[in-house]
Parts: sequence; structure tokens; C-alpha cells
Amino acid sequence: MIKAVIFDLDDTLYDTTLQVDKARENAVKAMVAAGLQTEEEKAAAALAEVVSKKGSNYENHYDDLLNALGCENNPKIIAAGVVAYHEAKKTYLVPYPGTIPTLLKLREKGLRIGIVTDGRPVKQWEKLIRLGLADFFDAVVVSDGHEQKPSPKPFLKAASELGVRPSECVIVGDRLDRDISGGKKAGMRAIQLTRGKHSRMKPADAHEEPDCIVSTIGDVLHAIQTL
Amino acid sequence: MIKAVIFDLDDTLYDTTLQVDKARENAVKAMVAAGLQTEEEKAAAALAEVVSKKGSNYENHYDDLLNALGCENNPKIIAAGVVAYHEAKKTYLVPYPGTIPTLLKLREKGLRIGIVTDGRPVKQWEKLIRLGLADFFDAVVVSDGHEQKPSPKPFLKAASELGVRPSECVIVGDRLDRDISGGKKAGMRAIQLTRGKHSRMKPADAHEEPDCIVSTIGDVLHAIQTL
Repeated sequence: MIKAVIFDLDDTLYDTTLQVDKARENAVKAMVAAGLQTEEEKAAAALAEVVSKKGSNYENHYDDLLNALGCENNPKIIAAGVVAYHEAKKTYLVPYPGTIPTLLKLREKGLRIGIVTDGRPVKQWEKLIRLGLADFFDAVVVSDGHEQKPSPKPFLKAASELGVRPSECVIVGDRLDRDISGGKKAGMRAIQLTRGKHSRMKPADAHEEPDCIVSTIGDVLHAIQTL
Repeated sequence: MIKAVIFDLDDTLYDTTLQVDKARENAVKAMVAAGLQTEEEKAAAALAEVVSKKGSNYENHYDDLLNALGCENNPKIIAAGVVAYHEAKKTYLVPYPGTIPTLLKLREKGLRIGIVTDGRPVKQWEKLIRLGLADFFDAVVVSDGHEQKPSPKPFLKAASELGVRPSECVIVGDRLDRDISGGKKAGMRAIQLTRGKHSRMKPADAHEEPDCIVSTIGDVLHAIQTL
């Protein structure tokens, strides 16, 4: 019997893919408007390359972007990008319409709910606070560095904090290679939410096979009843 | 004859002292509300000490704060502080009521206007953008590292960018030991604006003697006419 539901955060409780796309788009527009001598499309492509090389937590994306475009370093243009990026990022940091209703219903049914997410703990908690979700969960496990998904360890830690056995848990996440795989290896059921840029993959092995697939978080409650 | 007015940024064009005080106050309140086991006053005092030791651009003020208070590191509490700090900082990042009217009048009189400020260039430009002031100035000099105020160099650089002689410039700033001193050493006139926590000092030498003292930025126009 399912007693707890463990959610991933990014692209599972809110639209991270849309948020990041919009933030980068807004940054590039603002930089071009502030005087960056290139076309928006070219700048967007160059920025995507910088991000893919340096990772999303790198501090100097825009310095590298100007460098990649052969432009002189210009703090006004970089600042225009930073401000526009953060403004858009905040605007799009909202739960899916179905997130809060679903969490409320799960709690009202007596299910315990938790989060297992990878990232810097303070950054992930900032997201939960700004999303208005910080007080919903009975356990929040943020894996930084080692023991990230698809390791089963953060899932087992969450089950322990929730006071339930792994077999009594279902995990909900967008990524087969991280959420589904980690949850299954921990002995849990797994629901894939097909949202965001990472959800289009195919299962690479048996651990990546979800028990159920839903396209919106509002369908999770029904999906749990079918498990 | 005065042909250009060079402004300091922090505490001269907006109330930085109030902004930072409110941001720290809001951070401490949020951390206590999120579960920090101490009184707000004690936490505020401990935070002030961390900031005075590590400087305002240090990245881990709240980690150090929890440590100083003997509390376990807690990413939820730290994130609550970070979010509250940034929200208040943004709310109070507004020009003084007299700033924009004064800048408009100076420009309409045919005076050139500039900024000389110390700090990280991208951070100072972010402030100008969020203040709505990024497009007002004919020259913006941000001194990072060496050659900061009270060196006359950034002031001479601004005069050069403005296309005027130092003797044709007046600087406006809150700090005798940085703005007034640097401007006078550059051969400029100097108006002290008695705003913010740094404006209560007494002149330590002849370079720190302003030609004129005003209590609001709206008085700058009249003060220039008396020079």
C-alpha cells in the first residue's frame, strides 16, 4: 500500500525548462538592446554553447558570451543581461496550476509527501520558498555532490525521514535516467511526468521503466490508485 | 565655469544605508520565522559582526551567522534569509525622490553628468539599471580594485570622458574620505550630500573640506550656482 509520494522538484513541480528558456531569451534581448553588436539568434546560440560547456551554475556566462562573440567586455551590457535573466526567472518561478491542488489532496488523503532533488541545498530551498511550497513537505532531501540521483540513497533517506518503507513509496519525476531509475533501484514505484526537456528520452534499462506515465501533475492522484 | 557634475552612486543617488539596513532586518526576521532558534536582535547583532569581518560582497554570510550562533547549518533557514534579503533589497532600490528631477534639470541646463563609483562594475551597473538611471549619464566610471576613491584617477577619467577640464567639474558625494577628497585632489569643486551612514564624519584634512554641503539631492542645483 502506498503511504508516501516523493516528488522531484525541477520540471516536476514547476516548469523549469520554460523558465530557463524564457530567462535566457530575455537576457539576450536585453543585452542586444543595451548595445551588444549582434543578432539575438546568434547571441542565443552562443549563450547556449557557453552554458553547455560551463554548466548552469557557472558565474560568468555573459563575460564568456561577449568573448565568444568577439566583443569587448562591457559591464553595462552584462548587467542588462543579469537583470533581465533574474526578472524573467522570477516571473516564471511558479508551480504548475495542478501542483498545489495535488499536494493538498495527497495530504488530505493521509499520504506523506517528500522531495528528492539534486543541486545546491540553499538554491533548491530558495526555489521552494519562492514557489510557496516550502511548508508542504514532510521531508526534503537535497543531494549535493556525491550520492545524487540515480543513486537510490537520497530516495532511501527520504523514505526514512518520512517513516515509511521504500515499498510503500511512489516517486514522481520527469527524468527516466535520474528519478525513475533512482526510485526503482530504491525499491519504490515510479510515475513519470512527461514534462520538460529531459522527459523525451526512452528507457535505457529496466530501472528506467516507469510503472505509470502521466502528462500533468494533476493526474498523479489517479495514477497512484492504479498502481 | 561648471560644465559637468559627477555623482557618486551609493547613498548619493539612492538611500543605500536604508536599503541595506532593511534588507538585513528582513533577512533576520525571515530566518527566525523559518526556525532559527534565537532572538531577532541577537541574530541581527551577530550578522552585523559577520558582515564587518567578511565584507559585504562575501558569499556565505548566513552560513557564518548560523555557525556564530552555535546552530547547525540549515539550508531552509539560509534560503529564507537569502530570499528575504533580496526581496527587501529590491524594494528599497529606488532613487531619492529628488534624484531624477535633479538629473533632468542638470541635463536641460546643458551640463554634462557623470558617475564615479567604486565596486564591481557589473554590480554597480545592475543597480543603475534597476534604479532606472542607466541612460542618464554621459560617463560612468566604476573603479574596481586599485585606483579607487580617494584616488583622483577615476575622477580625472570621468572628466576626460565628459570632455571637460577638472576645474570645470563639481563632484557630489556623501563621503568626505572618498568622494570629496578624491574630487578635490583631482582639482574639482565638491559638494557633500549629508545622507547615509558615512556622511557623519568630520574632515580629516584640507582635501576633505567640501565647498558646499547639502542635505538633499534637490539642493544640488542651487548649490552649483553658489560655487
